[in-house]
Amino acid sequence: MNKPPVNSLNLEFITELNYNFQELEKSKCRGIILTSALPKVFSAGLDILEMYKPDLKRAESFWRALQDLWLTLYGLALPTAAAVNGASPAGGCLLATSCEYRVFVEGKHTIGLNETQLGIIAPKWFQDTFVNVIGQRQGEISLLRGSLYTPEEALKIGLVDELATNKEEAIAKCEKYIAAYAKISPGARSATKHQLRKSALSWLEKNRDFDVKIFIGFLEQPQVQKGLDMYIQSLKKK
Amino acid sequence: MNKPPVNSLNLEFITELNYNFQELEKSKCRGIILTSALPKVFSAGLDILEMYKPDLKRAESFWRALQDLWLTLYGLALPTAAAVNGASPAGGCLLATSCEYRVFVEGKHTIGLNETQLGIIAPKWFQDTFVNVIGQRQGEISLLRGSLYTPEEALKIGLVDELATNKEEAIAKCEKYIAAYAKISPGARSATKHQLRKSALSWLEKNRDFDVKIFIGFLEQPQVQKGLDMYIQSLKKK
Amino acid sequence: MNKPPVNSLNLEFITELNYNFQELEKSKCRGIILTSALPKVFSAGLDILEMYKPDLKRAESFWRALQDLWLTLYGLALPTAAAVNGASPAGGCLLATSCEYRVFVEGKHTIGLNETQLGIIAPKWFQDTFVNVIGQRQGEISLLRGSLYTPEEALKIGLVDELATNKEEAIAKCEKYIAAYAKISPGARSATKHQLRKSALSWLEKNRDFDVKIFIGFLEQPQVQKGLDMYIQSLKKK
Repeated sequence: MNKPPVNSLNLEFITELNYNFQELEKSKCRGIILTSALPKVFSAGLDILEMYKPDLKRAESFWRALQDLWLTLYGLALPTAAAVNGASPAGGCLLATSCEYRVFVEGKHTIGLNETQLGIIAPKWFQDTFVNVIGQRQGEISLLRGSLYTPEEALKIGLVDELATNKEEAIAKCEKYIAAYAKISPGARSATKHQLRKSALSWLEKNRDFDVKIFIGFLEQPQVQKGLDMYIQSLKKK
Repeated sequence: MNKPPVNSLNLEFITELNYNFQELEKSKCRGIILTSALPKVFSAGLDILEMYKPDLKRAESFWRALQDLWLTLYGLALPTAAAVNGASPAGGCLLATSCEYRVFVEGKHTIGLNETQLGIIAPKWFQDTFVNVIGQRQGEISLLRGSLYTPEEALKIGLVDELATNKEEAIAKCEKYIAAYAKISPGARSATKHQLRKSALSWLEKNRDFDVKIFIGFLEQPQVQKGLDMYIQSLKKK
Repeated sequence: MNKPPVNSLNLEFITELNYNFQELEKSKCRGIILTSALPKVFSAGLDILEMYKPDLKRAESFWRALQDLWLTLYGLALPTAAAVNGASPAGGCLLATSCEYRVFVEGKHTIGLNETQLGIIAPKWFQDTFVNVIGQRQGEISLLRGSLYTPEEALKIGLVDELATNKEEAIAKCEKYIAAYAKISPGARSATKHQLRKSALSWLEKNRDFDVKIFIGFLEQPQVQKGLDMYIQSLKKK
């Protein structure tokens, strides 16, 4: 990902990511490593400008594109690993937890679904993806608090699988993860993966319109817009 | 809870607890800490006298009140914590695990769903609440055995989040848990919580009559009445 | 289990196991310990000869018998424990994880659902049984990789409950597990167990034909037959 300054996920970037994943899936590559070309950020998550004082038609397209991206990434037949080389809050954490394996570069950044800290709600499929990695109990407490975890903490609760001292090492560890599948039948692997993730994927497939409606209804709440406004002001001060 | 000698949950006490939770939910309080005014017992669980040689009409009211209590407590928008300052078997453990956070006072008491030890069955929603805290595997073995855990054991398996040396410290830790939400949007928090607990809550909402029928059918079994009789005799000896 | 050389599960052996479990269930015995009379193998899993160049009618009977065996074993009212005294891949691991408790004899053998290593897929109910023991995250990574675990590794991830230095000790530990239920009401115990395992059991009960169809369709794939052929050749070399 290389969309300065923070790989924020807007409609265009989401669409591009999804397209690239689908093209890689069709290609003969052995796996996908998701990482950031930026020095300090993996992905800052959803672009708040898509949610702040939104054009509702675009907001709906934005959300449907995000649904598409997740359905693609979470269901990819290819082995997927995230070399998380910087901050990875909210939607950034969704991308990382949608991969099969996560290596987190040590440093002063954090990872987590911090939606409640922003006054917003992680959708059910964000929650399911997250809970499938760290379990129901740890997931509940993390989601309620909107916790962001340092690399050491993230490793301890199983939110990431390994740490690395720098991006190159993280990518090397991801490559090792993917290489471990060299002798495994891709068909057996992908059918196994699909079966394990089917329950979460099916929920969204069956509830796309409902999920869009929730999102739009949420954007239309004055207190949500007020919260986003405050958050944007605080970012400007930084 | 202050219903000597052991905070046993009979129809009246359950109704009162539910009413109080609902009133607190409507009030402007920041959270709820559930604890006991009694020295050695958090709650001994369901009042066995509601089940022993029952009037079936009252037994049905009793069970529906318990369902109501759990639907309220497990789904509360407010932050909830249990300062478990004494024995907490069966229904007492249900109350504790229905809260978001548990601090267990050290001592010679235990916590757990020990229904099988009494010859009875923890209903599905007791099980779901329990498994959502400690996971499927630990939940299965604990429920089959009807295990009761000391404070140290309960901490180790994640059935409680922290230990405390006395009730005051337990309450202080619960307060700290609740205070951590001071800057979190209550709306975002409660929607997140509801979404995480929806699957368990929905099951009971959809199966209330079925669940009552199971309970009543169970009370009508001679061997269950015999088991309760033996248990009551053993309590009298103590 | 005493079907040399490796307790492979063919139609006849599966049918015999199922019959024996059902007879023991009807008897007055206190529990079932599943172990192997062979020195190095608990069970090598499904007999590949039932899948290689199959007669489709027999293949369907084979699969339905396996479904029956699992529905019986996973749902047994009696306490069940596996004294895993040797290699326990694939279907062997299914048998072990379908019991309530597992003791693994130390040695140079392994346990796991290694289906992807063989180019095949562990069915949904194999996965559910496995994930109910070790959790979703560890289950996913293990199933994708087709990992086989040494006794020490299996203990660490919770795939087995205890280790033993030899078969006698394993059986003694299983006996101790079963004896712990001596004072527990069998009716309360079995109803508790059934309720905990109902979701997995119900899935197969409702999807038996679908599951057979998947299996047969899978056998009819040329690459699967090719994979089995290669595997059989490699076994012959050994």
